[in-house]
Formats: sequence, structure tokens, C-alpha cells
Amino acid sequence: MSYQMDGLPEQVTIYEVGPRDGLQNEPSVVPVEVKAEFIDRLADAGHKVIEATSFVHPKWVPQLADADELLTRLHRRPDVRYPVLVPNPRGLDRALAQGVDEIAIFASATEAFAAKNLNRTLESQFVMFEPVVARALDSGVKVRAYVSMCFGDPWEGPTPIAQVVAIGERLLGLGCHELSLGDTIGVGTPGHVTALIRAFRTPERLAVHFHDTYGQALGNTLAALAAGVTTVDASTGGIGGCPYAESATGNLATEDLVWMLRGLGIETGLDLGKLVSTSVWLAELLGRPSPSRVVQALSKG
Amino acid sequence: MSYQMDGLPEQVTIYEVGPRDGLQNEPSVVPVEVKAEFIDRLADAGHKVIEATSFVHPKWVPQLADADELLTRLHRRPDVRYPVLVPNPRGLDRALAQGVDEIAIFASATEAFAAKNLNRTLESQFVMFEPVVARALDSGVKVRAYVSMCFGDPWEGPTPIAQVVAIGERLLGLGCHELSLGDTIGVGTPGHVTALIRAFRTPERLAVHFHDTYGQALGNTLAALAAGVTTVDASTGGIGGCPYAESATGNLATEDLVWMLRGLGIETGLDLGKLVSTSVWLAELLGRPSPSRVVQALSKG
Repeated sequence: MSYQMDGLPEQVTIYEVGPRDGLQNEPSVVPVEVKAEFIDRLADAGHKVIEATSFVHPKWVPQLADADELLTRLHRRPDVRYPVLVPNPRGLDRALAQGVDEIAIFASATEAFAAKNLNRTLESQFVMFEPVVARALDSGVKVRAYVSMCFGDPWEGPTPIAQVVAIGERLLGLGCHELSLGDTIGVGTPGHVTALIRAFRTPERLAVHFHDTYGQALGNTLAALAAGVTTVDASTGGIGGCPYAESATGNLATEDLVWMLRGLGIETGLDLGKLVSTSVWLAELLGRPSPSRVVQALSKG
Repeated sequence: MSYQMDGLPEQVTIYEVGPRDGLQNEPSVVPVEVKAEFIDRLADAGHKVIEATSFVHPKWVPQLADADELLTRLHRRPDVRYPVLVPNPRGLDRALAQGVDEIAIFASATEAFAAKNLNRTLESQFVMFEPVVARALDSGVKVRAYVSMCFGDPWEGPTPIAQVVAIGERLLGLGCHELSLGDTIGVGTPGHVTALIRAFRTPERLAVHFHDTYGQALGNTLAALAAGVTTVDASTGGIGGCPYAESATGNLATEDLVWMLRGLGIETGLDLGKLVSTSVWLAELLGRPSPSRVVQALSKG
């Protein structure tokens, strides 16, 4: 039984970030064969876009040091995209060597986070991105751009909307096909989401990436959908966070999002039962329960 | 910093249910002096309506067996309302003897839950309510009516909207000033909320009461506000549930709601810091962490 709501899209693409954004923040390193099985299970549950891993230096994210091997182990499906995060030119070399056809880059919307996470300024981060994006596009590789701290950061407070739009439009101008607006510390609320999305000229090229630190992720998603967004980042079981930002906890859980979308009659193509059993399986391997409310409710008794 | 959203109210009344709906579902019995302090703290944080306890038979809810003594221990403030739940004529006797000026009754929207919770049918529950409401009103006591299982129940599946409206309008017709529409098992989604509220003739007399079992409580609240509701039930720290319905977990957390409303520029009169410290204090007494995301985030480090 579903009840539609005025002004929402008929279809939503869930961009699954669990294998990358989730696992990179786990204290324990998950074995490569488990990661490969995780991704295969997500594809089997109906996911069409799964961010598989990151070509970040193993010194910074040892959890994903096996990125090259992981990509060779996947049972790729022709109708599934497997983008990988690429932080810099060296990461792009590795991605191209593996024949990756879609990458994501990671920008900051605030000076403080650019300094802490990228060791750059808001301006000088583009010195790094420009050649990466140009070379990727020249090689026929599509580029998604994440923009983190779009609603606020722990050091500067609320992020000015004009500042996010300036960074975002510039990334789109480089040729990125999609911009993922991240609420890295989860402080945003629905009116802020609406205002930010409306400030962009092309809402159809935006995705949203919410963290549930203050319980706002799903309400914010509803606001984003009402503002014209049709791609939503989520993480199976709600795993993940951000290692460089205190108080940044889990991503929006894919299952909680699917529950809402299903109730709204919005098509996702996902099998909720398979997602939940994947989260239960992963939670056992990680040794802690899934933070997803839906996983908790459906895996009881 | 706040960002308003079109079509939302300027002000929202939070109807705090923690002392009753929260504590009645705790495995341990909280001492009466702790309950009194809890309620006094809530008033100090700015709450104007606090459901204090229930005059249910102690055999059914031993956690609230001290209802009479609790009411004598409160440091009542003239600008705060302290309604109590009254399940039947005997409960009303006790409430009137204590000089209570506002009660709440508890109805079911489904046959199965009426049978299990009230040992009555949908129809025969009114045989009990009618004289209770009439006598309360004759005594100058205001009556709120809860309707539980408005979105679905564990036995019958989704609850037909027309059935909820029929029960609800009948309760309003008896003279109840407010109807609280409960999603007792947390299955509702925003479109369902909108459709249900629109089906009533008087949205201004409706309140909503969401449980976060599937993570939908705050998104559903947003939909309810957009549909014209201005009273929202919530429970400090997200404590509470329903002992007679499997898989019914915590209420919407007051703190998570306040975070959203504050971000939307909607006035509540509540001091978030005092709410969080009350939840931390209570969680220590109850021996388990608050399920509220805001409490978890703000009480860290």
C-alpha cells in the first residue's frame, strides 16, 4: 500500500556508498573477499550504482588499501555502475589502470575542512581537481563531484549557501556530471536543504548525501525530493561517517530510505528484504548492530 | 541560523509524553520522586504541556501505580498543563479526586487492537468513552483523545483512512478538544500522513504521535506540519513504546524534533540544552542510552 505525495519524483536513484563511505570508517579492516561479496549482494538486491572503493593513499585510509584487488574480484553486472573515489592524480592513475569508467572526486565547501581534509584552500583545491577531471573526461571516464560540509562544519558554523553554490557550479563547469551535496556533520534541516537546492541552476544534476547525526537525514531527503532532486546517497545499514570530522556519525541508511520511498510509491528497484539480510550479515561481521531503524525492526524475532 | 520552509506553521506546541508513554514502557519502575523531578525539569526546559501519568489499573501498568502520589509531588506552574491518561470510569474517579483539569482517553482505530488493548470492539469502545467524556466535560475537565494504530497494526496491515476518520470524528463529536493520531507501530510514511490529515474536516484539532520504529517519525512530522497540524507529541530522549504491540519502539524524540523546528525557524519555547541534560540524567537512571540522535550527538565528549 502506498500513498503518493504531490511534487515528488516518480523514480529515485539510490547511490549506494556503503562499501566506500561505510567501510572506510570502520575501525576494523574488512577482508577483501568480504567486501567483494558485500558489493555482489548489493547488486543482487537491485542496486544500479555502487561506489565500490577509494584510490586514496593506504596511509590515510588503510581500510581501503585493497582497492585494486577488490576491483578484480567483483562479479560485475552490465547494468550496474561501480564508481570509485579518486582523491588526486595518483588515484586517477590507479583507476585508469584498472579500467574504471566512473570516478568521484571529493571537494570541500569550507576553508577549514579544505585545510584539514585536503591540506588546501577553497581556491587551491581546484588546482588539484582541474587536471584530474580533464584527464578523466579525456579518457572517457565520467566524474561525480562530492561537496562536503555544505550545511555547516565543526569549525566555521553554518556554511553560506552562496559559497556552496560557487564551489558546486565550478565543479559542474569542469564537466562533472553530478554534484553530491554532503551534510557531512548532519546539522542541516529541511528548509536549509530546500534553499540550497533552489540556489542551483540545475537541480537535476544534484544528488544529496545526508548523515543522520541529529536524526534529520530522512526529513532532509524528503525536502530534497520535493525540490527536484532524484538521486540520493545512502549506505546499507547506515554504516559510515567521516574520520576527519568529530561527531560525524552514520550515513542515511538505505533501508530507512527505501521504506519511505516504497510508502510514497516511488520506484527504486530495490529488494528491501535482501538489503536487510545483507545488513544483518555485515553487522555480524563488523561486530556491532546496524544503526538502521528498519534493519533493527525487521531483523527482530 | 534558520531557514523557513513554505507552508509550515510559525509556532508548534510539543505535547510531551515522556513521563507517561515513556516511563510506562520501561522495564524498571522509576521511583516517584524521580518522576516528579523529571516533570519539574521538563517544565523548567520550557514545556507547556506534559502528560504526567496514567490512572490505569496498577495490575496492567505497575510502572505508573504511583499516579496519585506523583500528582501531589509536582511543583505545578500556572502556565503548564499536566494532563493524565484516563482509561475508564474508575480512572476518571481518581483523576477527579486529584483535581485534574485535563485528561486523555485512549481509543483504537482497528478491531484487533481494540480487542487486545481494550478488550472491546471498535464500536463498543464508545460505550466506555461516552460516559467518561460526558462526566469529564460536566466537571470542567478537558478531554484529549488518542487514536492508536492509525496507519497500520501488526494484525490487520494498513488501517483504512476512512476507518480512522470515522473513529476520530466521533471522538471529536463527543466533545474532545484534540485528537492525537498515533502511528503506534511506526509504519507510516509522509504521503500517508498527508492523506490522513487531509481527510479530516478540522486539521487544527489534530495532533500527531509518531513512533520511530522504521526511522520515519521526523519525516512524517514534517508532512503533518505541511498539512496544517501544529501540535506534535514527542518524548524526551525518545523513550517509550507500546507494551501490547510487538515491534513498537520509541516515540519521536523531543530533542530531534526541536532540532528540526529550530532549523526551520519555528518557535517552540524549549531550551534544547536543558532537554538534553534531562535526557542524559534520565538515561543514567534508566541504565541505558537515549535513542535520540541529538542527545547522543550533543552529549558526546
